[in-house]
Amino acid sequence: MANNGSVLVTGASGYIGSHSGYDVVALDNFTNCVQGPNGESVALRRVEEITGKKIVFYPCDLLDVDFLKKIFEQHNIASVIHFAAMKAVGESMQFPLLYYKNNLIGMINLLEMMKEHNIFNLVFSSSCTVYGEPEKLPITEENETGKNVTNVYGRTKYFVEEMLRDLSKADERWNIIALRYFNPVGAHKTGKIGEDPTKPFTNLMPFISQVAIGKKDIVTILGDDYQTPDGTGVRDYIHVMDLATGHVSAMNKLEKGKFGIKFYNLGTGKGVSVLQLIKTFETVNKVKVPYVILPRREGDICEMYADPKLAENELGWKAKHTLEEMCADFWLWQTLNPNGYKLDTAHTNGH
Amino acid sequence: MANNGSVLVTGASGYIGSHSGYDVVALDNFTNCVQGPNGESVALRRVEEITGKKIVFYPCDLLDVDFLKKIFEQHNIASVIHFAAMKAVGESMQFPLLYYKNNLIGMINLLEMMKEHNIFNLVFSSSCTVYGEPEKLPITEENETGKNVTNVYGRTKYFVEEMLRDLSKADERWNIIALRYFNPVGAHKTGKIGEDPTKPFTNLMPFISQVAIGKKDIVTILGDDYQTPDGTGVRDYIHVMDLATGHVSAMNKLEKGKFGIKFYNLGTGKGVSVLQLIKTFETVNKVKVPYVILPRREGDICEMYADPKLAENELGWKAKHTLEEMCADFWLWQTLNPNGYKLDTAHTNGH
Repeated sequence: MANNGSVLVTGASGYIGSHSGYDVVALDNFTNCVQGPNGESVALRRVEEITGKKIVFYPCDLLDVDFLKKIFEQHNIASVIHFAAMKAVGESMQFPLLYYKNNLIGMINLLEMMKEHNIFNLVFSSSCTVYGEPEKLPITEENETGKNVTNVYGRTKYFVEEMLRDLSKADERWNIIALRYFNPVGAHKTGKIGEDPTKPFTNLMPFISQVAIGKKDIVTILGDDYQTPDGTGVRDYIHVMDLATGHVSAMNKLEKGKFGIKFYNLGTGKGVSVLQLIKTFETVNKVKVPYVILPRREGDICEMYADPKLAENELGWKAKHTLEEMCADFWLWQTLNPNGYKLDTAHTNGH
Repeated sequence: MANNGSVLVTGASGYIGSHSGYDVVALDNFTNCVQGPNGESVALRRVEEITGKKIVFYPCDLLDVDFLKKIFEQHNIASVIHFAAMKAVGESMQFPLLYYKNNLIGMINLLEMMKEHNIFNLVFSSSCTVYGEPEKLPITEENETGKNVTNVYGRTKYFVEEMLRDLSKADERWNIIALRYFNPVGAHKTGKIGEDPTKPFTNLMPFISQVAIGKKDIVTILGDDYQTPDGTGVRDYIHVMDLATGHVSAMNKLEKGKFGIKFYNLGTGKGVSVLQLIKTFETVNKVKVPYVILPRREGDICEMYADPKLAENELGWKAKHTLEEMCADFWLWQTLNPNGYKLDTAHTNGH
């Protein structure tokens, strides 16, 4: 980045954070990623291998204001990319207080620290969940947000978006881009970094992949009677490396000058059904992915896909990776790291 | 209260908190009320005078988790009434981060502390602002919330309501009543406690009253071209002593057994225009209240009044005080305390 300061990246070791490849000061609290034997982030060590660059890393939780303050004092930070958040939809419904605490207080602490240090450039990881059940497709940034958001995770994203909107209305020094991710899948081409769910999850691609590798028995498809071509739910899957370039484009826009706040969909614009994803994964990777159809789950959305034109027009960004690449890259990561980042730790410990 | 424990009251010294008259452990951080020379709450000292009962008081900010923990450890708390919040609409638009920090983190800290100590009975001070510009009148609890909420203060109330809803869905031990206040006015019959705005304010009744007593020059009416009988904005003013009994009714319901979460409007059901309020205040108190008509302010709502039937049916509660009483009682407080609680402090200091 052509800038006189570092980029602070929160949640840097996570699935999306680790794929962004910045010259950064990285924070992570290890809620959703593996910590090595010397307190380091295993994912970020891999990022260093890939990029050949050192990353300054702090095992910092955003709820630890004193630690955060020290980091802000020690580094000349110019911008912040805020990936850090808890993101398991099911878990968020079970433990709402935990999610509100982490995702809201973490954000508020970070914003306060930024303001105290005169840092007003922020890229925030939002999510298509803020749209709830969409009233029209494809989903543009003009679609209503906050209405019928189906889970607590999504509400934390919506609440933060509203906070950022109010902040930017009150103080024109803020320069904020909220990126509304659709469904991130895939992995880095090298297979060295990828999605490593540390908690029970229901995300489809890792589920398919763990069935294919024999760690899970069968994919459960929840409902095949939706109003979609094959009856299964339709989502807009986007390669995590496309998300990464989306962040680079957002940072470029932030550096060009003040505009207040902007919201952009990061999606491909193509709806893909559950069955289509399974079939593509099987074909591309020459594996078998058995599945079973179960009834719909309450609150699940039938069909979502982005209109990504605004990001193309204003950020010059467009998703480039195909569904086949998403499947192939995820599978490479899975086969090279059948236990995610845990293998690394085990190795280093001499097991 | 027939209960084996104390009621913890946050924001106890505030306008509404001080009128509730509980056998309580009271907290306040003095953001919106006057602190006496010995660190005590002037308003609560007055409450002690009125009730003849001692109040256990802590000058505790809900952001101070360690202090809060000590209080929860030292007292056998059975229920919590959470009044504490910042509430100046205009200020909330200027300093959104301050409002999100205080109102959201304060609530989250309190909920965590309650859960840790197995306390699940909560009455939360919500507000009719969660309805935004209402689509139909009178406003029932079924009216949509969160849509077009016109200010940050209102959004903090809406966000907390949603958090509480999620909490109660996830864990059936919670027993929560959110009371949606319409426009609180009036004061205690004795004139010893009342509304003492410590910050710039735009609330109509204190404004009228300060004009009547000569502390302000003129009431500014923002808009007389609304679709209302006399063109000025219509609100549902409710006597603060009626709000107080509303809390008693809510506490009674909490003690009768588990129901999850309930939302109740606390209003009279009668819409009163700005001009009507001024005229009534003048007539009842035999004072002159000059006013000037200015253009509408963006974001102001034309007309709001409650349907209070649900609270009547389920809480057995109904507002009893007339508009005339609201005006007379506020005026008694104003004339006995032209400088609010500040006079007390001055006296005690020997001035």
